[in-house]
Order: sequence, then structure tokens, then C-alpha cells
Amino acid sequence: MKRIAVLTSGGDSPGMNAAIRAVVRVGVRKGLEVFGVERGFCGLIEGRIKKMSFNDVAGIMEKGGTILRSSRCEEFRTTEGRKKAAVKLREHNIDGLVVIGGEGSLTGALILYEEHTIPVVGIPGTIDNDIGMTDMCVGVDTCLNTVVDAIQKLKDTASSHERAFIVETMGRESGYIALVSGLTTGAEAVIVPEVPVNYDTLSSRLLEERKRGKINCIIVVAEGAASAYEVARSLENRIGYDTRITILGHVQRGGSPTAFDRLLASRMGAQAVHALLNGDHCTMMALELGKIVHVPLKKVIENKKTLDMSLYNLAYQLS
Amino acid sequence: MKRIAVLTSGGDSPGMNAAIRAVVRVGVRKGLEVFGVERGFCGLIEGRIKKMSFNDVAGIMEKGGTILRSSRCEEFRTTEGRKKAAVKLREHNIDGLVVIGGEGSLTGALILYEEHTIPVVGIPGTIDNDIGMTDMCVGVDTCLNTVVDAIQKLKDTASSHERAFIVETMGRESGYIALVSGLTTGAEAVIVPEVPVNYDTLSSRLLEERKRGKINCIIVVAEGAASAYEVARSLENRIGYDTRITILGHVQRGGSPTAFDRLLASRMGAQAVHALLNGDHCTMMALELGKIVHVPLKKVIENKKTLDMSLYNLAYQLS
Amino acid sequence: MKRIAVLTSGGDSPGMNAAIRAVVRVGVRKGLEVFGVERGFCGLIEGRIKKMSFNDVAGIMEKGGTILRSSRCEEFRTTEGRKKAAVKLREHNIDGLVVIGGEGSLTGALILYEEHTIPVVGIPGTIDNDIGMTDMCVGVDTCLNTVVDAIQKLKDTASSHERAFIVETMGRESGYIALVSGLTTGAEAVIVPEVPVNYDTLSSRLLEERKRGKINCIIVVAEGAASAYEVARSLENRIGYDTRITILGHVQRGGSPTAFDRLLASRMGAQAVHALLNGDHCTMMALELGKIVHVPLKKVIENKKTLDMSLYNLAYQLS
Amino acid sequence: MKRIAVLTSGGDSPGMNAAIRAVVRVGVRKGLEVFGVERGFCGLIEGRIKKMSFNDVAGIMEKGGTILRSSRCEEFRTTEGRKKAAVKLREHNIDGLVVIGGEGSLTGALILYEEHTIPVVGIPGTIDNDIGMTDMCVGVDTCLNTVVDAIQKLKDTASSHERAFIVETMGRESGYIALVSGLTTGAEAVIVPEVPVNYDTLSSRLLEERKRGKINCIIVVAEGAASAYEVARSLENRIGYDTRITILGHVQRGGSPTAFDRLLASRMGAQAVHALLNGDHCTMMALELGKIVHVPLKKVIENKKTLDMSLYNLAYQLS
Repeated sequence: MKRIAVLTSGGDSPGMNAAIRAVVRVGVRKGLEVFGVERGFCGLIEGRIKKMSFNDVAGIMEKGGTILRSSRCEEFRTTEGRKKAAVKLREHNIDGLVVIGGEGSLTGALILYEEHTIPVVGIPGTIDNDIGMTDMCVGVDTCLNTVVDAIQKLKDTASSHERAFIVETMGRESGYIALVSGLTTGAEAVIVPEVPVNYDTLSSRLLEERKRGKINCIIVVAEGAASAYEVARSLENRIGYDTRITILGHVQRGGSPTAFDRLLASRMGAQAVHALLNGDHCTMMALELGKIVHVPLKKVIENKKTLDMSLYNLAYQLS
Repeated sequence: MKRIAVLTSGGDSPGMNAAIRAVVRVGVRKGLEVFGVERGFCGLIEGRIKKMSFNDVAGIMEKGGTILRSSRCEEFRTTEGRKKAAVKLREHNIDGLVVIGGEGSLTGALILYEEHTIPVVGIPGTIDNDIGMTDMCVGVDTCLNTVVDAIQKLKDTASSHERAFIVETMGRESGYIALVSGLTTGAEAVIVPEVPVNYDTLSSRLLEERKRGKINCIIVVAEGAASAYEVARSLENRIGYDTRITILGHVQRGGSPTAFDRLLASRMGAQAVHALLNGDHCTMMALELGKIVHVPLKKVIENKKTLDMSLYNLAYQLS
Repeated sequence: MKRIAVLTSGGDSPGMNAAIRAVVRVGVRKGLEVFGVERGFCGLIEGRIKKMSFNDVAGIMEKGGTILRSSRCEEFRTTEGRKKAAVKLREHNIDGLVVIGGEGSLTGALILYEEHTIPVVGIPGTIDNDIGMTDMCVGVDTCLNTVVDAIQKLKDTASSHERAFIVETMGRESGYIALVSGLTTGAEAVIVPEVPVNYDTLSSRLLEERKRGKINCIIVVAEGAASAYEVARSLENRIGYDTRITILGHVQRGGSPTAFDRLLASRMGAQAVHALLNGDHCTMMALELGKIVHVPLKKVIENKKTLDMSLYNLAYQLS
Repeated sequence: MKRIAVLTSGGDSPGMNAAIRAVVRVGVRKGLEVFGVERGFCGLIEGRIKKMSFNDVAGIMEKGGTILRSSRCEEFRTTEGRKKAAVKLREHNIDGLVVIGGEGSLTGALILYEEHTIPVVGIPGTIDNDIGMTDMCVGVDTCLNTVVDAIQKLKDTASSHERAFIVETMGRESGYIALVSGLTTGAEAVIVPEVPVNYDTLSSRLLEERKRGKINCIIVVAEGAASAYEVARSLENRIGYDTRITILGHVQRGGSPTAFDRLLASRMGAQAVHALLNGDHCTMMALELGKIVHVPLKKVIENKKTLDMSLYNLAYQLS
């Protein structure tokens, strides 16, 4: 293996740059030529491939987003698209590809390997924490801290007024961000796609708590369960007091990565190079017991992570 | 003057606690008894008045919100309501009242003085920065930093994708927060109530900038000008690429106050006690040339602050 | 088991309050009476024990430090001292004790169990991350982010001048904080107690890097390896340019806990109650594969965590 | 005026980049060619001058430090050195120079103007806030927030133990940072160069407060008054309990600038271009009553700002 490439795909997550930096620097130290592919699989199909040096990745670890930019690529979902991508990699004599992204991107990497035997390794980068076989994904920790900071600010002002505050977080299919940010800020309720919400029960509980003297009322909802507006509408006439909404949106994807995400991404980036060199192809770098291990991509895709219901119960026990 | 009271009224703003702390501590040091009124003018009417000691305000300066809680009080807008409030103050033998709040609250204080000759002094506390005769109001600085931090996080991720991001800030009548946060993050556009928006012109400019290679597209809009959704709808079909929205909501009111707001509030709180003692009644504490001065409340109410259009122009020059 | 107590001991770490909150709230939900012991084992010997309610722990999760206060207790190191502690627990009819602290505190808990068969469970709370059998300890993550933020600020200014900056972190026996904060900020060198430093080699490397155009020079040193002053003195005459020092001190112990520490502490606190109820006495709550497991305290004490040298090597590979 | 240059000199301060950005962008919009001088007056003497475009300053506003780098230049203190600088400016046909820096740098600019009639304008950039005729200097606000955040973290842990914490801040000749950060965190004492410290009096007060139940003990000292070690040594044997020290060092100069500093720097940068174009030469941009005004540099240098003793008294009244 002489020449490897790295790309970021799908929704970006904080820490992707730290992973890119580690791939490039460890690659260079190991005597490889390392290439960056711009704009994910779309850029691969278009051949937007450029050589990267040790210095090209200086000062990027602390930045959110991805210097390689990202995209969701429809064309890569087709046999034809993937063929073009494989051709481009061969044109550049690239022997191995590191794909940093979420489930869709890792599935893409798996198919690219299966169809074209391109050696690929994946790094789980997503704020949703819905990828199996790894304790954590790159970006989750930063995202959680962003949401926790925002809710914490809400709490100050919430206790000055008699209102309910609805915070909508990211999470189309996974309630992880909503659940953990709710648990760690002592939110009064958490609404996630994995658990059906009953507004009558919820309202009764909120009214009862208010009667017992509780001032704060913060409800965290994952976008996949309901929009903040829906929750507000459903609650207002039931509880009889005002609601206010916060939609953090893409703010959750940004920010300088936390120490955790920088470390995780750096270790996974370094291990990705080792995996390519050691022939551990078609694997994903995973965090397990505090170590980085190589797990077959196929196994990752087959084992989507589901919400830990014990956390859900704990959130209610503690609030 | 032997006994004074302090209350917070209207929308809360970060730094109000620092002002309360200064009123209480300087009051106590000056040999006064100091009382806290809970829930603003509503609490005053209801007689929710309690004595406060030096230690009661320990450790509150760093907290957002207001430990005295706040309210918007309809009853106080009536002659009857204000009469009740005056009676309660006299029942408690309170000789002077410090009112911390925005324009509506300061107007209330002015009328209370005019109708009942209760010595009042005001402290401008609002995130809107729309109060005249003072360089800054307590809470504006913290609010701006919260919005700037959020937009900064957006920029990381914005430059990874090809989208327009719309951020809705507070500001029903004033575009100050939207304007200054947009200017200090280099947002591509700022939409404020004070300046009519032309979506055709705006879209043309955005498309042109994109053509010239600009990747980021962040638009900050004050809620009083349009909702984030309206802006998104108006732009999407004109510019032809996706938009994403962020609505910070009450997050903007919260957070541990900045050094600036702590200092401003502490100085204004201390001066409010001096003003009461010196007979500078019916004044507002104002920041002028780095000093705290006492300005007649009447003059404050008559001179609402308007948006500094030179800042608006500067935002466009720099972006 | 009807009555349990909780204490924090040794150096405090961010997240201890979240653990206390979880012990109290889960305990109460399980029908137990929960007591807080003030000032660690010293307070236990003195009988500073008070009942805690669900509401007593409201709003504490977000605070650094420990509301129960802490101490290093010499008397508890004696047989006599521990006997007094056991007597106090029996006087209060306390059936189980949760000890939150570092290695010394957990050893104390172990001996208390062995000598007096008091059911104890431990929660690893320390910023040093030197406790065995658990992936992470409560407080480490927050501490790392504090140090990373500080070094990141240094980098801005460091690249404006031609100087070397020496940052001294906590870590008497463990270089974990220095190593990980150095790795995740791209520091030029990391000096830890576990690896002898050679100032000649280090200086040569720094001079060479400068010759190759590197502007930044940040060196992170754990207090157990050398003081910032020692490093500065040793380097200055060798490298020939100025140094500046930063000693963060106890700032590293404080701060509002991160989402990670809040979650870890909440889960460990809840599990500690379960462990007491299930008879898993003399265990420590540990993080393993993303789950909280109960590990025998004896095993914990026998397996002190050592520095992961692969991280040390990675830091140098990446910088 | 066709060609102008900008440089940063002396100790850097957060917000300098925002000022550079504004000078470049407003300059370009006004049809000027704008040049950046690297490494302050040293770089000017060496002719390190390069043209800067609108895009060259994209994305720099949020960064601490200065992209133009800085230096303290001994040679520029000589007639000969300044002559070389003037020659270089003339060689590049540069008609006007914007100098961003502290008192020394502005004095340098003044002399350059007096000796060589080079049109200069100054922007006050220093964390010391010791420059006259302006309410605030670029960088002070960010620095204060950094120090306040650090002390706030200390407070959490300080109240868990029985110790005194000494925090050393920057400020060789000015106690502003120490004073304001102490005031806004409720520190127990502030030691500044402007007021002689009496350790006997201070110790007595601290002991008395402890006797009355005060747990926290935080002392903020400006480096120009004493080192943290000196204070610790002087107090320890007098108060009889342990001390711990924190030295923030250059961390105080770094960090992403606050909204305030970004706004102030942007406005001053824009006005600096206007001042050059309008012939307001040899002036400094100053903040006065919320507006940017042009003040003669001579007057600035003659009116060094002194510590506001009313703030010093307020700090003690409130703590």
C-alpha cells in the first residue's frame, strides 16, 4: 500500500477534522502518500482528489465541520456511480480509502468494497450515536455539550417565569441526543422517536409537578418524534400556560470539538491507517473498553445501535 | 431613607442578579434595610415582599435569570393596580424602590412616582438595548455573546455544505441583537424590523456571491422583522438551494453573565442606592463615557434608542 | 437496607454533585432514607450527617465542586479513626455507604468494609484517571476540556510571537491530563512523570522544528514530572528564546461538568444504590463497554491504571 | 491617498484580527490598495509588507492573536530604526499607516508621524485598558471574560475545601484586569500595583471572615503588584491554612474575541480608514459615548488612564 485517500460524507460532525489530520499525519509518517477527496462520494465520482501534506492539516483539529467538505451523494447510490468512483481511485493509483461518516456513508463504503474490492476502512462520524459495535461515534460528545449548554442557559431564565420551554434537537430516527441532553440537564420530559408520547399523561404530570411547587418546565424533543411547534400546540391547551420554543438546528453540528472527540477521532484516524496497512480491510474503527478495535463493516451495518432504555428510565427517575 | 425595596420586571436579562446583589449589599453597608419583591409589580401588588440580608445574595452574581423572579403585570397598568402597589409599599414602610427592567417596567416606575410620589430609581435591564440615554443595558452583552457563539458554531458546519442557514434572534421592535451578532460573525445578511427586506435583491446578491465562490451563507433575522420560516420560504425558491433554520429563543436570555454585564449591573446597583439616598428620585442609572450617571426617567422614556444605521451599513461593508 | 449515606472524599472533581444527586434521588425513589455526610471521612468521624430529600439536590448537577464538601482525613487512616466512623454510622442506623472519590478514598472504603463489615460501594471521582478497572472516572472529561480550552487560547497568541509556552497541569503521579490535553491540542511536547525527560533531546527537536518554520511551541508538563518553572529554566538557555508559563492550578478541578461527566456520574450514582440493595457490597461502579458494571473494590485497588503509552507515542506522531 | 498599510505591535490582544479585517475590507471598498506589515515595526523596518485582498481576511475575525504577528521592536525606538521604517513605507508608496497596539506602539506611531510626517492613525489594542481618552481598548473585554471564567471555576472547588486561592493576572503597571475580574467574581481581595498591600490587615480580615463562616477565599493579584507565590508566602503563616496558586499567563491574551471586542475592533478599523482619508492624521480611534471618535494621538499619550478608585472601593463594598 503506497497511496491512500480520505473523505468525509453525509452530515458533518465535530471531530472529523481531527480524524482527517490523524489519517494524513500517520499516513505520511508511515511513508504513504495521502490524498484528500473533496465533497464526499460526489467529489470522488468527479475526481476532486488532491494530495495532502503534513502541514496541510496544521491547526484544523480545533475546528468544527470538515475541511474536505461533505455531501449526500445520490449518484453514489447507483451501481454506475460507484463504478465511476472506483475508476477514479484506480486512475489515481489509490490503494485504500478511509471513509468518515454515518451509517449511510459506511454502507456506501461497504458496497464499494464488495463491488470493486477497494480496500476501505470506516470511521464512525455522526452526532446521532446510532452506529453499532462502538461505544461512541466522533462528534456525539461535542453535540451533547452544545445542547446541554443551551438547555442550561434556558434553565436560568425558565425559573424566572411561569412557562414551559420546548427544545427541539436533532435526531430523525434516534432519540439519543434528546435523551442524554435531557437527562444531564434534569429536563422535566424527553420525547424521542423510540417511545410514543401521550400528551394527556405528560400534561397531567406537568400540572401535578407545578402544583407541588416545581417552577421549571423544560421538555426536550428529538425532531424525529415531533417538531417543537407540535409539542407546544399539544401542550398549551392542556396545561394552560405559555410555551416558548428553541430549535437549535445545525448549531448542534458545529463548534470546536471537545477533548473527547478530538482524542477519539485522532485515535481512530491513526488506527484507520494501521488497518489499511495491516490488511484489516472493510472494517470500522470502534471504541471498545477504552481501546480502538477493528470491527467488520458488515457487522456494524447489521447491528444498528438502539436507544438504551435504561437511560430513558433513569432520566425520569432523576427528574 | 431607612427601608428600600428592589424588584425585577418584564423579560429577564442576564446580570439582573448582579444588580440585585449590589443593591442589597450596598444598601446594607449604608445601614438600610433592604427588601426584595418577588415576581415584579405583580408581586408588589400581592405584597410578596421579604427582607434580604448580605448573605442572601451570596453566589448569585454568576447566575442568569433573576432570583426575585419576574412577570409582566397587567394589573399594574391600571390606576387601581398601581394604587394597591403603593399601599403595599407604605404598609412595609418602604421609602424607595429600585426597578430593574426594560422600557415598559421603567415607564411603570415613572407613573408610580408621578401618581404616588414613591421615590423610584430605574436600572435598564433588557437584552434589546432599546433604552435611551444609556450606552448599554444590563444583559445585552451576554445575549450578544450567546448569539455570536451559536452563529460561530453554525459557520463551521455551514462551510461543509451548500446551504443557507437562517438564524432567528430575539427583538420584536429592535434589530440590535440581529444586527450586531450578524456584523460580528460576518453574516451574509441581516434582516431587522427597522429596514424593509427585499427578497429579490437579497437573493440576487446571495446568488452572485455564491457564483464568486463564497461557500457560507448565514442570514440573521430579528423575530420582529420576520420568522426564520418566512425567510426560508421566501429565499428557497429564489436561490434554488436548501435552507436550514435555527431559533435560539429564550436561550438568549439565559447564561452566566459576562464580565461586562456583571460590572455594569454591579455599578448600577450600587449607584441606585446612592441615588435614592441623595434624593435623585425618578432617575435611571445610565452608562455614559464609562461612568454611571443618573438620568431623569422621563427623559429616558421620551428618548427611545433607535438602531444605529451606521452599524447596519458597516455590517454590509464588511461581509 | 433502609438507610444509606453518601460522602465525597479527597480532591473534588466535577460531576461529584451529579453523583450525589443520583444517589439521593434513586435512593428516595426506592424508598430509602438517604443521608449526606459533610467533609468526607472527617465529617463521618465527627458525625456531620444530615438527611437529604429529593429537593435538596435540585439544581446541583450543573455545579462543579461538591455540595457535601470534601477533605483529606488523616484520622481515618488510623484504626481508631475508622472505628469512630463505623460507630457514627451505626448510631445513625445507616446500612450502607456510598464513597465518591479517588484511589485513597476508595482504599479507605475498602478497609472500612474489611474492618467493620459496613456495606460500601465506591464511585471513582478524580481528575487523574488513574483508577483501574474503569474506562473513565467522574471529572476527567471536564478537566480535560478545561485544560484544552486554556491551551487553545494560548495557541492563538503563541503564534503571534516567537516564544515557548509551558503549561503546568495537575497530575502528581499520573501524566494522563498532560498527555491527553497535549495530544488534543497538538502541543509540541508533553512531559509526564511516567517518562523521563531529556532536555537536550527536547531542545534539539524544538530548535529543528523552528528552523523548519514552525511558529508555535507549546509544552505541557504534569506537575509530578516537573514544575513549569523548572522546564522554563531548563529550556531557556538551550533554545535561546523566551518562555512564558501558565499554571492552571485548581481551575482544573472546577467548572460546570460536561455532558459526559454528568451522564457518567448520574449512572454511577444510580447503580451505587442498586449495588447496595442487591448486596454487591464492597464494589466500585465502573464504566465498561458503555455500561456501568460493579467491580470488586479489592480488584480496583490492586489494578491501578497506568498511562497508555500508545497515546504517548501517538501524541508525538501527530505533533 | 491610494495605498495604506496596517500593522499590529507589542503584546497582542484578542480582536486585533477583527480590526485588521475591517481596515482591509473598508479600505478595499473605498478603492484603496491595502498592505499588511508582518511582525510590527520590526517587520516594517525589514520591509515585510504584502498586499492584502478582501478574501485574505475571511474567517479571521473569530481568531485570537494577530494574523500579521507582532513584536516588540527595539530598533524602532532609535531614530535610525524609524528612518528605515519611513524609507520602506515610501518605497512601497504607502500613504498612510494604521497601527494597532498599546501605549508603546501608539507612542511609536506618534514619533513616526512627527519625524517623517507619515500619516498614521492608531487603534488602541491592549488587554491592560490603560490607554487614555477611550472608554475601552480592543481586547480588554475578552481578557476579562477569560479571567472571570477561570476564577468562577475556582470558586466551585474552593468552596469544597478550606483553602485560600491566589490568582495572578496580567497587568505590569495597571491593576485593571485584577480589579474588575475580582469585583465581578466576588473575590475576597484584590491586590493591584496602584494600592500598597498590607498583609497584616488583609490576613486579619480573611481570618475574621472565616470565623463568621465564609468558606471561599479567593485573592486576585496583578503581576505588577506581586507574584502569586509572594502573596501565598506572605499569607500562609499569617492565616494558618493552605494556599493554592493559579497563574493564567498568556491564556489571558488568547481566545476567540467576545462580541464586544469584535464590534469595537470592526468599528475602529473602519473608522481608521475614514480618518486616513479625511486627513485626521495622527489620531487614535476612541470609544466615547458609544461612538467612535478621533482623538489626537498626542493627547492620548499625555493622558494615560489610571485605575478608577471608585471601582476598587466598590469591589470591597460588595465582597
